[in-house]
Amino acid sequence: MSDRVTAALIVIGNEILSGRTKDANLSFLAGGLNEIGVVLAEARVIPDIEAKIIEAVNALRAEHDYVFTTGGIGPTHDDITAASVAAAFGRRVVRHPEAEAALRGFWEDRDIEVTPARLRMAEVPEGAALVKNSLSIAPGFWIENVIVMAGIPSVMQVMFEAVKGELKRGAKILSRAVSCQVPEGTIAAGLAGVQADYPALDIGSYPYFNEGAPGTTLVLRGTDEALLDEALAKVEALVVECGGTPLAARSG
Amino acid sequence: MSDRVTAALIVIGNEILSGRTKDANLSFLAGGLNEIGVVLAEARVIPDIEAKIIEAVNALRAEHDYVFTTGGIGPTHDDITAASVAAAFGRRVVRHPEAEAALRGFWEDRDIEVTPARLRMAEVPEGAALVKNSLSIAPGFWIENVIVMAGIPSVMQVMFEAVKGELKRGAKILSRAVSCQVPEGTIAAGLAGVQADYPALDIGSYPYFNEGAPGTTLVLRGTDEALLDEALAKVEALVVECGGTPLAARSG
Repeated sequence: MSDRVTAALIVIGNEILSGRTKDANLSFLAGGLNEIGVVLAEARVIPDIEAKIIEAVNALRAEHDYVFTTGGIGPTHDDITAASVAAAFGRRVVRHPEAEAALRGFWEDRDIEVTPARLRMAEVPEGAALVKNSLSIAPGFWIENVIVMAGIPSVMQVMFEAVKGELKRGAKILSRAVSCQVPEGTIAAGLAGVQADYPALDIGSYPYFNEGAPGTTLVLRGTDEALLDEALAKVEALVVECGGTPLAARSG
Repeated sequence: MSDRVTAALIVIGNEILSGRTKDANLSFLAGGLNEIGVVLAEARVIPDIEAKIIEAVNALRAEHDYVFTTGGIGPTHDDITAASVAAAFGRRVVRHPEAEAALRGFWEDRDIEVTPARLRMAEVPEGAALVKNSLSIAPGFWIENVIVMAGIPSVMQVMFEAVKGELKRGAKILSRAVSCQVPEGTIAAGLAGVQADYPALDIGSYPYFNEGAPGTTLVLRGTDEALLDEALAKVEALVVECGGTPLAARSG
């Protein structure tokens, strides 16, 4: 599709790779992007290591319309995202005047000491625009096609909503889904036939066990509603042919 | 560390990138690897596209001691992991005789028709060893340093347990953690000092909000128990210096 708009996510954080924290940002971002027709095409989870951040940012920004990052934008020594993204673009890190003014105002109102560590939160790559949010004074930023957000899900979500309206839109990806108590192996050949008949759709098959009995959820994704409904009818007929009963399943 | 053993995970699945399904395998794998001193150093979530699978497998198997994949090993048209991993190694796909015999036996016992689609589940790259599991007849496989597992978490977990004992072990990564109602910005400078004093440890700072009040969890990771306890005492003293009270936090 010529109007396909794609994005990648880079989750920056040792705490995800250690298993200590479960990432919650990928599925939120996928859902939010889907609403505006942007396809989340890849995600990477990488540690707080500058060389890894540079490598991932540069590989993915060349390949996708947008790259989102989460994590590593606070005041502590392990918050190296701004400096690493700046390095990926070959730019200097500068203190953003608007971010600095907002942070100083916030701290002065609360008698919080302004320290060099705290002021690191105002640092962005030269030329980056701020991504403001109401929950946290630490801003995210936007540089070319890379959007840098916080790792805390509540803050990340507000930041994403702040930029969402400014992203270019693609054709919205719609989906249909049906479940059945038919094992994947029984429906596989027929399903491959339906996929071959509808190359514009992406048909996925996801096995599950329901109280030990094998079942399959079939998900159809595409941008053409009529085509989806037509293919769904074929898949439902196939389920019946395979001795199953089509059951409602969550789309998305 | 010379005895550092690293692994990467490739999650293969459109259903994760669409946000439909939340990945549960990363945190399980991270925890399981950690028990044997293997560091999960990177993860990628990629779609069911052969070129993307080949690229990820070849990039990561050159860089890490082990690469695990999850997803895409069933009988349907979108299950392309075995063929794609074979292509990454420049090998043919063959029907593994032991897998075929087990599958045929299972189906015959249950009067399930043996179809070409079902027999795809016996296909592995030439030279691969099977990863057996008690839950599913579809085997995973192990080729050089790449271990291919199912995407369903319960099956993936059994497959991982089947190979775990045969992986080489590194020094076990231990951790200590402390939480405090001190904002990150207050503790940042002191914490950078502790990190500088203990370069063998990896000290992470994770902000959170507790009923609107900012707090920070500090996590120390490393292989030397005595060093960890020494640095933890320094961090706890720092918390007190910053006006906080060190609170127990989950390690890991």
